[in-house]
Amino acid sequence: MFCIFAEPNFTFAANAAEPPKPNVVVIFCDDLGYGDLGCFGHPTIRTPNLDRMAAEGMKLTQFYSASPVCTPSRAALMTGRLPARNGMCSNKRRVLFPNSGGGIPANEVTFAEALKDVGYATACVGKWHLGHLPQFLPTNNGFDTYFGIPYSNDMDRLNDVGPRGRAAFWDPKVEYWNVPLMRDLEIIERPADQNTITKRYTDEAVKFIKSHQDGPFFVYLAHSMMHVPLFRSREFADTSLRGLYGDAMEEIDWSVGQVLDTLRETGLADNTLVWFCSDNGPWLVFDTHGGSAGLLREGKGTTWEGGMREPTLAWWPEHIPAGSVSMELGSTMDIYTTSLKLAGADVPTDRVVDGVDLSPVLVGNGPSPRKAVFYYRGYQLMAVRMGPWKAHFVTHGSYGSEPRQAKKHDPPILYHLDHDPSEKYPIQNEHPDVIDKIKKLVLEHQSQMQPAPSQLEIPLGKTK
Amino acid sequence: MFCIFAEPNFTFAANAAEPPKPNVVVIFCDDLGYGDLGCFGHPTIRTPNLDRMAAEGMKLTQFYSASPVCTPSRAALMTGRLPARNGMCSNKRRVLFPNSGGGIPANEVTFAEALKDVGYATACVGKWHLGHLPQFLPTNNGFDTYFGIPYSNDMDRLNDVGPRGRAAFWDPKVEYWNVPLMRDLEIIERPADQNTITKRYTDEAVKFIKSHQDGPFFVYLAHSMMHVPLFRSREFADTSLRGLYGDAMEEIDWSVGQVLDTLRETGLADNTLVWFCSDNGPWLVFDTHGGSAGLLREGKGTTWEGGMREPTLAWWPEHIPAGSVSMELGSTMDIYTTSLKLAGADVPTDRVVDGVDLSPVLVGNGPSPRKAVFYYRGYQLMAVRMGPWKAHFVTHGSYGSEPRQAKKHDPPILYHLDHDPSEKYPIQNEHPDVIDKIKKLVLEHQSQMQPAPSQLEIPLGKTK
Repeated sequence: MFCIFAEPNFTFAANAAEPPKPNVVVIFCDDLGYGDLGCFGHPTIRTPNLDRMAAEGMKLTQFYSASPVCTPSRAALMTGRLPARNGMCSNKRRVLFPNSGGGIPANEVTFAEALKDVGYATACVGKWHLGHLPQFLPTNNGFDTYFGIPYSNDMDRLNDVGPRGRAAFWDPKVEYWNVPLMRDLEIIERPADQNTITKRYTDEAVKFIKSHQDGPFFVYLAHSMMHVPLFRSREFADTSLRGLYGDAMEEIDWSVGQVLDTLRETGLADNTLVWFCSDNGPWLVFDTHGGSAGLLREGKGTTWEGGMREPTLAWWPEHIPAGSVSMELGSTMDIYTTSLKLAGADVPTDRVVDGVDLSPVLVGNGPSPRKAVFYYRGYQLMAVRMGPWKAHFVTHGSYGSEPRQAKKHDPPILYHLDHDPSEKYPIQNEHPDVIDKIKKLVLEHQSQMQPAPSQLEIPLGKTK
Repeated sequence: MFCIFAEPNFTFAANAAEPPKPNVVVIFCDDLGYGDLGCFGHPTIRTPNLDRMAAEGMKLTQFYSASPVCTPSRAALMTGRLPARNGMCSNKRRVLFPNSGGGIPANEVTFAEALKDVGYATACVGKWHLGHLPQFLPTNNGFDTYFGIPYSNDMDRLNDVGPRGRAAFWDPKVEYWNVPLMRDLEIIERPADQNTITKRYTDEAVKFIKSHQDGPFFVYLAHSMMHVPLFRSREFADTSLRGLYGDAMEEIDWSVGQVLDTLRETGLADNTLVWFCSDNGPWLVFDTHGGSAGLLREGKGTTWEGGMREPTLAWWPEHIPAGSVSMELGSTMDIYTTSLKLAGADVPTDRVVDGVDLSPVLVGNGPSPRKAVFYYRGYQLMAVRMGPWKAHFVTHGSYGSEPRQAKKHDPPILYHLDHDPSEKYPIQNEHPDVIDKIKKLVLEHQSQMQPAPSQLEIPLGKTK
């Protein structure tokens, strides 16, 4: 048997002794459920491109966002830090709104700034939601270019157009919302044509990759979908078994295929690390317009597993073992630290960075340095995962089955998430020793937590 | 680029004009949950062999057993017929017990009898549960050989040994139960050493395949696991993150790997159709000793999706497209009909056979001929799926979240399972037309249903 697998690769780094800096692509979805991909068990959503990404890369089954809602979660990805540390959260307003005057603080070292410092070309495509005033926008925070919407696609509701209230979501039309589409600092379309937005984001990302083949580059592709109102382009209308949600999801899957195909075709695949993740769990109150958390309990807005555990994939051919599954703990904040380390960029040392370097997990030769997950709602620490154990000190539901107000628990409700990922069988009475250890960990954590004033509570016009 | 993928295959059928009859292997688990495999989304159970089986074959995401409990479900697989048609169900006793005198009726044409008629060597390995009296055992129903336990592994409880009641399940030992292990018609070990039972079943199946390489053969490998009490051999003790359930499941996964490796190594892979499925959903009342139905509602004993939708794989290299996912409707009764058709065996025409031929689905060139699923509890029709629609006429829970008694619904509760696989959003009020169509289908179905007297209600000593 004789086989040449592929053409030799004639691309070399300038300095042959140094491995080339990998390109980094982060594909970030909105309100995607843990159970919404084929490779995470959904029965009626087809995701052949994501399934292939998993088959060629790594599926991470215990990977968390840093918040169960949008703005804080994205701030954590962009800074590697818990939102409470930079004020990108609030106990009053969960996220930034069009009438907010705050945004990502200037002294934060963003993902893009850190990579730009070591020579990366940087593009932000998609939903930002870290402040819509000029100083907060991507191109003033480390990105060379920006194309996308500045906040959620359901903001700027036009209540004098179309059906009012929730009814607008069931038959969404572009003109019911007045969301702006921006390029860099300018509004180029309003309302944004959301029907074609996934397609246009994809085209932008692909174009950027093709025009930066000499690398290194960083592309942050943050889809507006699967946040309601749901849209998909004409080619995906009524094509999935799962209805509108499935159509939109299958277009995201198509988009992932376009990005990976571009990397394959340009010969950049082996030197590009691609992450796929989401900002928080599915928005269950929207019935079939919300996603599925699979076997996990609850969804968006809660610190149950369904609110913060994300369906995560990492792809980097020749580096990440094909078809691998990691059950190690990870966080979107680790995407920041891991990518910076691999790029040879500086991870800030003058402040607490919560992200850890997951490279040993990715290349399959070591455990995760992450031993704990802290589940916050605004500034409030609600729950802590320590190894397989999770203690809920306070719970707050968003869906019918859980109460919609905060409820304190003393002793905390304890689950063993490896044995009981659905958080069904409380075992706090059997394990007081574990609760003691978690309480110690909380004290240690809180001794290093200096919360910054909330950016989300600053009204428009009062920006400092 | 030049590539020889494999050595040429010098095996030919005796008559070159006829395709060789495929060997058939059915691997059937007990009480396995829809969400318990890695490829169906479980976060902490490792199933690399089943994942590979899916990657090389087909994952079927809308595939059903014919009953939410053991005996009726297995009877349907073995006969291609709904249990009510042959009396292998009851409204009083859900399954056969050691004090039962009934079993599979002699006039049924079993899976093994049909294949034996066209020259197959036939082996039954594992749990039978279609009657433990001699006339009901596998070797009197079409199987050349039998090695296994005649009923569930939690029957024959010895209440004078070890902890009583449910406590015995939390730290199970072989000696707490008096389950017999049989070879053909003889008891060869009592109590059966359940610690090594998955391993020994596997060895038997592999040995049978190796000694019947000239084919054709049919192996029915019906694991005792994941039914409580859970056991695993020493090599799998404390090796999974998921605890005892995960250990036992990962041994099943190992077993699947052994069977498929044997087929690969003997060169039989391309001519062997392997099915992987389970008899019903997870037994949720056993907490972490029960499995997970993933995103599906409820589990074993109920006609919610979690009770009857099974994680199903089909593997037949060179015939079933690798890595394919089918969302078409299927049933364990279709395993019977499809396998018989492919083997050139006669599907009975003198009685109603509920199984349909899924060959077009398997080879990827057509839709499923199955348009409906009938959900029975004993002789009672509880629910009907027609295309994507499911109507519950009666519900009955088994777990905490559903009432444990029968509850009638008029109008029936209606769900769109493609849009809402978790049965969360009832829509009967919006679709009276669909309910009318389903009611017509029920009348049609019932006009062709002639229930046979129950075999499960015959006491020992009263066998006809």
